[in-house]
Amino acid sequence: MSVLTTSSSSRTLKIGVVGFGPFGQFLAKTMIKQGHILQATSRSDHSQLCHHLGISFFREEREFIEADNDVILICTSILSLSQVLNNLPLHFLKRPTLIAEVLSVKEHPRNVLLQVVPEDMDLLCTHPMFGPESGKNGWQDLTFVYDKVRIRDEATCSSFLHIFQSEGCKMLEMSCEEHDKIAARSQFLTHTIGRTLSEMEIESTSMNTKGFETLVQLKESSVSDSFDLFSGLFIYNRFAMKELQNLELALEKVKQKLQQKMEEQSSNESKL
Amino acid sequence: MSVLTTSSSSRTLKIGVVGFGPFGQFLAKTMIKQGHILQATSRSDHSQLCHHLGISFFREEREFIEADNDVILICTSILSLSQVLNNLPLHFLKRPTLIAEVLSVKEHPRNVLLQVVPEDMDLLCTHPMFGPESGKNGWQDLTFVYDKVRIRDEATCSSFLHIFQSEGCKMLEMSCEEHDKIAARSQFLTHTIGRTLSEMEIESTSMNTKGFETLVQLKESSVSDSFDLFSGLFIYNRFAMKELQNLELALEKVKQKLQQKMEEQSSNESKL
Ligand SMILES: NC(=O)c1ccc[n+]([C@@H]2O[C@H](COP(=O)([O-])OP(=O)(O)OC[C@H]3O[C@@H](n4cnc5c(N)ncnc54)[C@H](OP(=O)(O)O)[C@@H]3O)[C@@H](O)[C@H]2O)c1
Ligand SMILES: NC(=O)c1ccc[n+]([C@@H]2O[C@H](COP(=O)([O-])OP(=O)(O)OC[C@H]3O[C@@H](n4cnc5c(N)ncnc54)[C@H](OP(=O)(O)O)[C@@H]3O)[C@@H](O)[C@H]2O)c1
Repeated sequence: MSVLTTSSSSRTLKIGVVGFGPFGQFLAKTMIKQGHILQATSRSDHSQLCHHLGISFFREEREFIEADNDVILICTSILSLSQVLNNLPLHFLKRPTLIAEVLSVKEHPRNVLLQVVPEDMDLLCTHPMFGPESGKNGWQDLTFVYDKVRIRDEATCSSFLHIFQSEGCKMLEMSCEEHDKIAARSQFLTHTIGRTLSEMEIESTSMNTKGFETLVQLKESSVSDSFDLFSGLFIYNRFAMKELQNLELALEKVKQKLQQKMEEQSSNESKL
Repeated sequence: MSVLTTSSSSRTLKIGVVGFGPFGQFLAKTMIKQGHILQATSRSDHSQLCHHLGISFFREEREFIEADNDVILICTSILSLSQVLNNLPLHFLKRPTLIAEVLSVKEHPRNVLLQVVPEDMDLLCTHPMFGPESGKNGWQDLTFVYDKVRIRDEATCSSFLHIFQSEGCKMLEMSCEEHDKIAARSQFLTHTIGRTLSEMEIESTSMNTKGFETLVQLKESSVSDSFDLFSGLFIYNRFAMKELQNLELALEKVKQKLQQKMEEQSSNESKL
């Protein structure tokens, strides 16, 4: 794991986004602001929004692939990754291209990409640790994790990383495995608690403590991401199940401690 | 439930604190800053700290009771309340006095006080919804809940409430029952999640999301309160057990939804 501090060279990139959902759109806006040229394809028809943003939208995947991108950026849901990649006619790429992705789990897309992407294409696995909510006021000091899985064209890779670096992101190079281990104990856990609070239907009260207020916010930001995203964090991170069990166990232990204290207290009271 | 907005008259009070632990000390500092005269008694010997703060500390409870307080303010732990009150020789009070308390549960102290406090003493049950951590930068906009259980001397009660009102607290009059219902679903829930995260030994990582950062803070502030306080929230709030069960059920439901999605996903993948 290392933090990238040296500023790297950068050039304007032609970036083809695959999956123009909430997160793809969120990233695209900053990339356009920086002067990059964007193209997109997606399951649903986002052509109107793309037109509005100055992005060429392709309904035909083959045309998209042949549209001469420097980078193909996979922003599709975790659950649909295999299907999307299997349908993408990558063998029509006319020249070596950087295939990058931003999924919130890392071992799974790395494994799928290594299987389906032609050998002469470079591979970069990344995870911007922020989204439309937490990054709405800019990306300064937010973490960007990446793993250079197969990079030969360092210049293109470095220009792509520069997009995040120049916005002030904390750049963190890390193996996909290490990412998934840590993310299961932090991001997945956070989403699980947010979803649990939502299941309980907790609401802001007239007498919130500061701590409770942060839980209400957590609940709201968790449900603003799709359930597909949350379940992707679980299904495609092999460390997540264990952390879910750890959470259940820890809650059980807390409950036991409370019950034990209750028994002690009632035996003390009966002695009074 | 009503919010007090009119500014009330106030005078300097002689306040006798029973239980000079973390929260009693925290309150005392602001009361002294405001010019009130403080006295204290406690199980442990806090005479040095009291001397330093300009507070008379009494080891003898009878002397404390006879030291002519306008208000006796109970700041002892929830678990020790019955014992502390049963040992306090309140019948030696020389004149009508306001007995106030700040416990984080409300029905229990109200019931105990109604049993042990002589009929000619006034009773005010309160809960400042903040503590040494959340209130360290002042009490502005923090909530102060109270129930005027038995008040005849309105002037003294109002002077006492003015302590919190003048610091900018949001003053919220509410029945003890209503308080406990809401607190079980907010404050107790917050502490339970904080303690659970502590049981899991979660720690800040190199790639925290903003949401996870708030959980790390929650964990830290939960364990900065005593386990006696946390277990008091559970044992002496009759609504807490139900909310603990709701939390467990909600987590179980989230787990089931994840498992169901996982099965769907694996049947989809096998069709690919
Ligand atoms: N949101 C965040 O805060 C965040 C942060 C970092 C990383 N990410 C990652 O970014 C990716 C996108 O996230 P998101 O927030 O936009 O929501 P998401 O629900 O994870 O993904 C939505 C995207 O996936 C596509 N999609 C879903 N099911 C599909 C299917 N069966 N076939 C083809 N395409 C399908 C959608 O296409 P259409 O729109 O065309 O229907 C849309 O582009 C995810 O991998 C997520 O883990 C998200
Ligand atoms: N901390 C907060 O944020 C907060 C906020 C609002 C309300 N409150 C309420 O304020 C009260 C005090 O809270 P705290 O934070 O100071 O911690 P606590 O652990 O709830 O209570 C500590 C106090 O209780 C006394 N005590 C404990 N066991 C005793 C026993 N067996 N016999 C006699 N006295 C005993 C301690 O006396 P010694 O110090 O003399 O040993 C100390 O004064 C609690 O009722 C709590 O619910 C706390």
